[in-house]
Amino acid sequence: MGAAGAVVLVGAGPGDAELLTLRAVRALQSADVILFDDLVSPDILDFARREAKKMLVGKTGHAPSCRQDEINALMISLAKAGRRVVRLKGGDPMIFGRADEEIAACRAAGISVEVVPGITTAQGAASRLLVSLTRRGQARRVQYITGHGAGNGRDGKLPADIDWASLADPAATTIVYMPTNTLPELAARAVAAGLDPETPAVAVERATRADERVIAATIADLPARLAAGAQSGPVVVMIGRAFAEYVESNSRATGETRLIGART
Amino acid sequence: MGAAGAVVLVGAGPGDAELLTLRAVRALQSADVILFDDLVSPDILDFARREAKKMLVGKTGHAPSCRQDEINALMISLAKAGRRVVRLKGGDPMIFGRADEEIAACRAAGISVEVVPGITTAQGAASRLLVSLTRRGQARRVQYITGHGAGNGRDGKLPADIDWASLADPAATTIVYMPTNTLPELAARAVAAGLDPETPAVAVERATRADERVIAATIADLPARLAAGAQSGPVVVMIGRAFAEYVESNSRATGETRLIGART
Repeated sequence: MGAAGAVVLVGAGPGDAELLTLRAVRALQSADVILFDDLVSPDILDFARREAKKMLVGKTGHAPSCRQDEINALMISLAKAGRRVVRLKGGDPMIFGRADEEIAACRAAGISVEVVPGITTAQGAASRLLVSLTRRGQARRVQYITGHGAGNGRDGKLPADIDWASLADPAATTIVYMPTNTLPELAARAVAAGLDPETPAVAVERATRADERVIAATIADLPARLAAGAQSGPVVVMIGRAFAEYVESNSRATGETRLIGART
Repeated sequence: MGAAGAVVLVGAGPGDAELLTLRAVRALQSADVILFDDLVSPDILDFARREAKKMLVGKTGHAPSCRQDEINALMISLAKAGRRVVRLKGGDPMIFGRADEEIAACRAAGISVEVVPGITTAQGAASRLLVSLTRRGQARRVQYITGHGAGNGRDGKLPADIDWASLADPAATTIVYMPTNTLPELAARAVAAGLDPETPAVAVERATRADERVIAATIADLPARLAAGAQSGPVVVMIGRAFAEYVESNSRATGETRLIGART
């Protein structure tokens, strides 16, 4: 039994520990080692066994390709040594979570690998805002894109090959992951491609956490408003007519809404 | 306290009860009444208290607009009578789950309403297939569309206003909900709009359940293969280069793969 190491890639969801799946909790509770990203909230790690070793591996600011190689190598050497390894990632590993590289590395090494999906930040934010991403008559398509290009986005550049027409579609709800550095250019190019500058747009920082912060604006205004506020956590931007009523009710002069008791 | 009724819209996820969130379980355990859709797997209802009343409301085949009105009216009358009501839906209520209509009805009636997000069928299927929806170098956009138009899709027609160019984008992963009746037309029109007919496409029936079934094909072949197999559960179709390696390994002569032990 000692040699039966394995890797489970686990989606930690958007932040609120209550949004973990039962299967994620079970994986955490049976892990010997947990390799976690810095976007994972600390109370999620509390589900681990006390004896489990917890290692922060997804620290920002490091050379990305090297880091990913290092994570893969560490994960595989632990599993080869018989450890049950959980690789814990914010959101869902299969949506902008680089799961494919870790799955491929495990397979190449002959290590058993499983994936436990997680609630995405956008799903968490939509539930908190009480706004359906496919609001009837407003949105008939939901799309996730990333605001960051290759190199794990540390270069602050947009991906080279964004399909701008798909962003200009008035009947789409667009979710932008890691938008912070590139939102001004993204908004400008989407508008140039035909997106109405008055299209409602919402930024949610630390979605589903106790200190969640929401900025409700239009796509023309949001970049400046987002840049004006101090950001200290993951941000997701959601764009589309589905948010019209929410923005109408929540875009005050300050442009900021702290979501306290927003569920009534 | 007796009058404090409330409604919680809960995402039941794709099928596997282990993919419920902790918060969904808590909502089920504290509900007096559970109004559930027929896509919800029975073992998920086992999380409810024994005393809770469980009512199937999302039965297929009824006149849809009428049904939705009836569900809203029932939900609100129960909450007004002081009941804690859980409205349990497959997948995520905020992605093609008609949550917006139920939220609006609750708000209009002054009933407290919350939403608990759920893992979508596509997320569940991706984790089982071990295929990232944003596979590096293959997909830089993920989109969810529905194969069914207004009238809750019982008319078997495609939505009138699909953005075909966004489906033709070779770097998108497209998830089609409720594809069954309209997939032949959807595939033909996507190809006419420029989608490579050799684009990998996978249909997953009863994703994440014990009797999950997968058909791995190309977008040109999938409609006929899907039509040839008997379907007895919810189906999701996933299209895009991200599935190339999976399709390569799994498209046998029969065109069908039963996913048993696929996680190694």
